[in-house]
Amino acid sequence: MKEAILNPKGLKKALSGILWLGRTDFTKVAPFAPGELGRLLTPHGQFLGIAYFNPRSSILARILTRQEETIDHNFFRARFQKTLEFRKRLYPEENVFRLIHAEGDLLPGLTIDLYHDCAVFQISTAGMERLKPEILKALKECVPLKAWVFKNDLPARKEEGLPLYIEKEGLEGPLKICCDGLYFWVNPIAGQKTGFFLDQRENRRRLARYVKDKLVLDLFCYTGAFALYAAKAGAAKILAVDRSQSALQTAEENARLNGFAGKIQFVQDKVEKFLSYAPEAEIVILDPPALIKKKKAYQKGKRLYRELIRAALKVIKGNGILLACSCSQFLSLEDLWWLCREEASRLGREASLLEIGIQSPDHPVYLPMPETFYLKGLFLRIL
Amino acid sequence: MKEAILNPKGLKKALSGILWLGRTDFTKVAPFAPGELGRLLTPHGQFLGIAYFNPRSSILARILTRQEETIDHNFFRARFQKTLEFRKRLYPEENVFRLIHAEGDLLPGLTIDLYHDCAVFQISTAGMERLKPEILKALKECVPLKAWVFKNDLPARKEEGLPLYIEKEGLEGPLKICCDGLYFWVNPIAGQKTGFFLDQRENRRRLARYVKDKLVLDLFCYTGAFALYAAKAGAAKILAVDRSQSALQTAEENARLNGFAGKIQFVQDKVEKFLSYAPEAEIVILDPPALIKKKKAYQKGKRLYRELIRAALKVIKGNGILLACSCSQFLSLEDLWWLCREEASRLGREASLLEIGIQSPDHPVYLPMPETFYLKGLFLRIL
Repeated sequence: MKEAILNPKGLKKALSGILWLGRTDFTKVAPFAPGELGRLLTPHGQFLGIAYFNPRSSILARILTRQEETIDHNFFRARFQKTLEFRKRLYPEENVFRLIHAEGDLLPGLTIDLYHDCAVFQISTAGMERLKPEILKALKECVPLKAWVFKNDLPARKEEGLPLYIEKEGLEGPLKICCDGLYFWVNPIAGQKTGFFLDQRENRRRLARYVKDKLVLDLFCYTGAFALYAAKAGAAKILAVDRSQSALQTAEENARLNGFAGKIQFVQDKVEKFLSYAPEAEIVILDPPALIKKKKAYQKGKRLYRELIRAALKVIKGNGILLACSCSQFLSLEDLWWLCREEASRLGREASLLEIGIQSPDHPVYLPMPETFYLKGLFLRIL
Repeated sequence: MKEAILNPKGLKKALSGILWLGRTDFTKVAPFAPGELGRLLTPHGQFLGIAYFNPRSSILARILTRQEETIDHNFFRARFQKTLEFRKRLYPEENVFRLIHAEGDLLPGLTIDLYHDCAVFQISTAGMERLKPEILKALKECVPLKAWVFKNDLPARKEEGLPLYIEKEGLEGPLKICCDGLYFWVNPIAGQKTGFFLDQRENRRRLARYVKDKLVLDLFCYTGAFALYAAKAGAAKILAVDRSQSALQTAEENARLNGFAGKIQFVQDKVEKFLSYAPEAEIVILDPPALIKKKKAYQKGKRLYRELIRAALKVIKGNGILLACSCSQFLSLEDLWWLCREEASRLGREASLLEIGIQSPDHPVYLPMPETFYLKGLFLRIL
């Protein structure tokens, strides 16, 4: 295996737990092919770990292990078994969860969602792409898979010099999943990401305590998960809004599937526009897609969040609840707090914070890399 | 009613939602007696709200309302009814909750915990002290009270020029409460604060998913609430540690009361010392008392948190969970994250963040005043 020698800065970084290393973290790097595995050495030549390299990427190396071990299907199987055990502890009665969440599970470049016996992989780096056969073999050894999809169409792959593609086996059309006792149609191929946002599961559960007998607005509802959780928890009525017709079609089917078609009214519109004519509501769920996708879009994206929060605050009744979410890693929890605070005071509305929701624990945040903390949700009460 | 005229800075502050005003926020202030109510006026003489004043305190005025209204028992009854309704929504099957949480419920200087038909008040300001008869009358009109305690021994009262005292009626010795199906002896008189820490209820509930069949260390266990929740959730064994003999005695009684005496072992020791001989455990709850009580104690207190976190990380098994808490308002969530991150990496331990727990929603954080966000808990998984 080729080698790369860290400089003192790179060593410090690696020892602090950070898994990503750039060109400037090394004194000497062998000529790696994109995605090739290599040994990381300290400035004094001691073994530090194994990473995969990509000279095409601004992130030159991503650490896979700090042990001397072979990176093959046995390596992945051991990792998968460990995360599987933990997920079963988190969700003992569920067959739907994220099994691998990239850095949060020490496997940068790889995510795997399990929908019963179907696995949906997303690979974002050349290093993981090269290890694809080992990954698939390992997962088959851990879980009885009937179908799998490589949903390898993430734009981030371009920076790694990788083609965008979708590959599948055993999957015929959408899947019907059961999550927290609710049924959903999930389409890993045509849907966003892996087809369903499991990262909001905890926040959907938490919302339940607030919605009984209330009018709920589910904004950016996608396939209706928040709306269905609210219906199950006894909301009086739900208005679920999205501008995507295909998402709403699935959402409507999901509502019917669970016997909530009469409770949920679907509105196809831009959320910004809907809020200009929306009725006053007691509960508003504001869960937009990532509005800051790159660091340089920070100011513009923040403005968009601000406008949405303001519009949402305008339609909430006194004593109502706003769940204000952001899934942009670039918008910090403090940013979100500050935006809510400023817009509330601008509208003369007093508010308290009841809970902080983050991405579900099957999407763990990797502690040394705060950039892996992407999903934030503030449960606010209007006083 | 006497009046006080805000300057532009004070006006901006008050309009931003902040409830506290200092001397430098006013152009003109009538000679208020400690705790006297007064009208707040804008620089142009318009009515802005009603506050109580205390010329002895560095916080000259605290806003009670932005309406023209009489501050009497009717005012408090309307506020109490509103918060009562909300608490019943939060905890529909519970008779134990915080009814009023100071700024978070727009009533600075007042907290009220309800333990079934006993109310425990804490008043920290001269303004609320003067309103005590109205407050008691109002609560009696909302809730059928059999007993009440004014646990007015908070050190903060000294800065307000108030005596420290405890006053009670109808209370004979400790109370037996039921919280989440568990029974606890609560002593509002001799215990800390109001006798029981309801602010950790959500975090105790959340911990349940991680503890089944595990060895749990409950550090700074006080009267054993975390330990009992863990026992109920199926922990194999719990070591509960506190240096206070009286707290441990109550904790032991609580364990017996719930039939968990065989599962929980109580250790009377300083936590710092206990951690030097503690067994390795899968779950560690680190819930120290506030170690930073004043801003100027920040550096010293942070060091104490750091040492505790380090010692706790040393005894956690791989795949274990650390719940690292701080109830110091001066230690921010980012501080706590950073301390955990640094100490984990110093020990060569990789960790992920699973959940962020804050004070329970019956202890709402007042959004415009981040200093009301005091309780933080990071659920960390050691990888």
